[in-house]
Amino acid sequence: MKNKHYIDRSLKSLWNPCTQMKIQQAQSIIPIRRGKGVWLYDYDDKKYLDAISSWWVNLFGHNQSEIKKFITDQLDLVEHIMLAGLTHEPVINLSEKLSTLTNLGHAFYGSDGSNAIEIAIKMSVHYWKNRSQPKKNKIIYLENSYHGETLGALSVTDIKLFRKNYASLIKKNNLIKTPDWRYAYKGETAESYALRCIQDLEIYLQENHQYIAAFILEPLVQCATGMGMYHSVYLKKARELCTQYQIHLIDDEIAVGFGRTGKMFAFEHANIKPDFICLSKGLTGGYLPLSAVLTTDEIYMAFYENKIEKGFLHSHSYTGNPLACSAALGTLSYFENHDVINQNNKTSAYISERIKILATLPISNIRNIGMIWAFDLEEVTKNTLKKISMKAIDRGLLIRPIGQTIYFMPPYVINHDEINFMIDTTLEVIESSL
Amino acid sequence: MKNKHYIDRSLKSLWNPCTQMKIQQAQSIIPIRRGKGVWLYDYDDKKYLDAISSWWVNLFGHNQSEIKKFITDQLDLVEHIMLAGLTHEPVINLSEKLSTLTNLGHAFYGSDGSNAIEIAIKMSVHYWKNRSQPKKNKIIYLENSYHGETLGALSVTDIKLFRKNYASLIKKNNLIKTPDWRYAYKGETAESYALRCIQDLEIYLQENHQYIAAFILEPLVQCATGMGMYHSVYLKKARELCTQYQIHLIDDEIAVGFGRTGKMFAFEHANIKPDFICLSKGLTGGYLPLSAVLTTDEIYMAFYENKIEKGFLHSHSYTGNPLACSAALGTLSYFENHDVINQNNKTSAYISERIKILATLPISNIRNIGMIWAFDLEEVTKNTLKKISMKAIDRGLLIRPIGQTIYFMPPYVINHDEINFMIDTTLEVIESSL
Repeated sequence: MKNKHYIDRSLKSLWNPCTQMKIQQAQSIIPIRRGKGVWLYDYDDKKYLDAISSWWVNLFGHNQSEIKKFITDQLDLVEHIMLAGLTHEPVINLSEKLSTLTNLGHAFYGSDGSNAIEIAIKMSVHYWKNRSQPKKNKIIYLENSYHGETLGALSVTDIKLFRKNYASLIKKNNLIKTPDWRYAYKGETAESYALRCIQDLEIYLQENHQYIAAFILEPLVQCATGMGMYHSVYLKKARELCTQYQIHLIDDEIAVGFGRTGKMFAFEHANIKPDFICLSKGLTGGYLPLSAVLTTDEIYMAFYENKIEKGFLHSHSYTGNPLACSAALGTLSYFENHDVINQNNKTSAYISERIKILATLPISNIRNIGMIWAFDLEEVTKNTLKKISMKAIDRGLLIRPIGQTIYFMPPYVINHDEINFMIDTTLEVIESSL
Repeated sequence: MKNKHYIDRSLKSLWNPCTQMKIQQAQSIIPIRRGKGVWLYDYDDKKYLDAISSWWVNLFGHNQSEIKKFITDQLDLVEHIMLAGLTHEPVINLSEKLSTLTNLGHAFYGSDGSNAIEIAIKMSVHYWKNRSQPKKNKIIYLENSYHGETLGALSVTDIKLFRKNYASLIKKNNLIKTPDWRYAYKGETAESYALRCIQDLEIYLQENHQYIAAFILEPLVQCATGMGMYHSVYLKKARELCTQYQIHLIDDEIAVGFGRTGKMFAFEHANIKPDFICLSKGLTGGYLPLSAVLTTDEIYMAFYENKIEKGFLHSHSYTGNPLACSAALGTLSYFENHDVINQNNKTSAYISERIKILATLPISNIRNIGMIWAFDLEEVTKNTLKKISMKAIDRGLLIRPIGQTIYFMPPYVINHDEINFMIDTTLEVIESSL
């Protein structure tokens, strides 16, 4: 039993993220040695199906040979080039490709998603200052939103568990009603509810637009609150209101970009153009930390001045790291060489069909977009939820419920047998736990 | 001329960090294709000596075979494992090794240095809350300090150029007199000045300690203000005061850790134990983005409770990325297999001897610790400074003056010929520019 050796050492030396360590210690922890496709293997060679794409980062499976090749080729040239005064081919290629894909440009890089959010917030407020409107310095954000946990990102995050203990460190921003359709009146359609939320937003903006720099949102899916989904009309109308009231729309596609919702980017469902897009997670196919913010020419030009202090002087040492950029280029190359979005549509249809067998369970709000599925367990205790995920792990299925929501967000390369295993095992562990 | 092709494309597609893009465009930009040792090569194969270790991240030269081997070996197993509920050997090995080296433990990971700062600040304030002292929620920081540019990190950064435009987004913390000896009275020794600053700190703490969670500092060298150096007695006495007044000492070794000051960590010069240490940059030998915070058992145990909200729930998707951890393990392996600190002492002595030839120039405050050297040019215009760095680049020497400070912070593997080139070229370009 090699696992035990690593479990003991890990619990002593490591502080895991998003974890109460005392509870974790009581539940043990799974040490993973290797991965292949949708599978992760522990040190005793037991395998687990990664139904959540390792916190929503993995697209094309673990140990993916095409992405790996891009990294090893770059390793033979140079590992890192500082981007102040210097540049390099991987970051240029990546910036051009991201620009083509998003219809935005001037890629600015960080390594963590939260840093992309901080960059977009700072750029937006700085833009209005450069444009002699310094009072436009508040950001508005949606109820139940998650944009990261550095203090600037927390100032636009509404998950109390992540935010409450740091209230004294966080600048106040302003909260907007969420379009998550689970909050609709009984019988109200997702579209009607989204339009009602838009009315609410409009009333708010009429009164307050002169103080608002930007509106930040997760397009179509508020992932961290348990895959809360909303109608694309909200995005479309929010874009119109932002334009009307001179407010930047910051599109946080960190969790849903790169094909997850059935289009390359979620904003395409509404045919809109955001002012900023924030990318990370799937950007490198789940290989390496990298984040990027792209924006419009108009915003870029507000910083393009002779005065140094009008420039955006933000920096991270590893901005645009060539190895991480190469992983991202490998990921985009995979998109170019495989018919990913169409293939995902077929996979998605199969999963949606198979998931119907769960309808016999006491669950509600079964929802799906692209390669994300979620449902809420009704009236379950914390203990039952714990039992469900531990039984699933026991059977070799890695899920990670959020509150009473169980969701699937598998790597795109999951095949029919693996889908059957994922759904059947879920049915079995829930049935036997209730 | 292949360079031009990349320069044009880069200036169109990329927004460089810490850069006024209009000025950058006028000066052009250097596209780098490959690296080896202390040298970077552009696309026309012209080489540049990297005298600043690519923004202080590189330790053992570019394209370093030992570190590379660790990454390629890990690439054959798995690229990334999410650290909530799971763990893996590289992060365990790294956490144990960092614990042994720092005498702290419970390593918590991020990817950017700024995130390590945010983590330490949040942990400190949360600690006091868990210990029923919620009023202890302010951080104190030194004049001229730099701890990063996310909004929490900016709240303890005193570089006006980086901070001023975002004032409305930043929570106020409290500034402490800097011990940088350039601010001493004429004739006052570095030690006397440091002790005078300690008196100042003590007066402040007597009055305000009940509101203060932590004191954050860059130990011995305030790098971003132009390598401002101070006497180690300040660290020693600051530690004593922090203990006396129940304030955490956050030791930001992001720029100076891993041998840069002549010891593995700068805090060793004062024989102290900080409450938190923040690591990044050199942690991976300059290969990949990774940051870590280590702390005491006492602090860790304040979070170790049955209640989930007492836990430290911060997270980044790529926390403890196995490839980045492997680069860090390669870096620490290099330290284990080579007599780095002693070898650096010899290199440092040689550079200090050679640098004396610059004494004929109109410069002041020639200063050094370990593998960092700096001096200030007296009464020079911005244009002259620009001329100096552009001439240096023309001659194949990459320096990046900060204000009127010129500094050297080369990779540790720089040899005598390369040192001679670095010093002789510096003398020549300054002499011919004044």
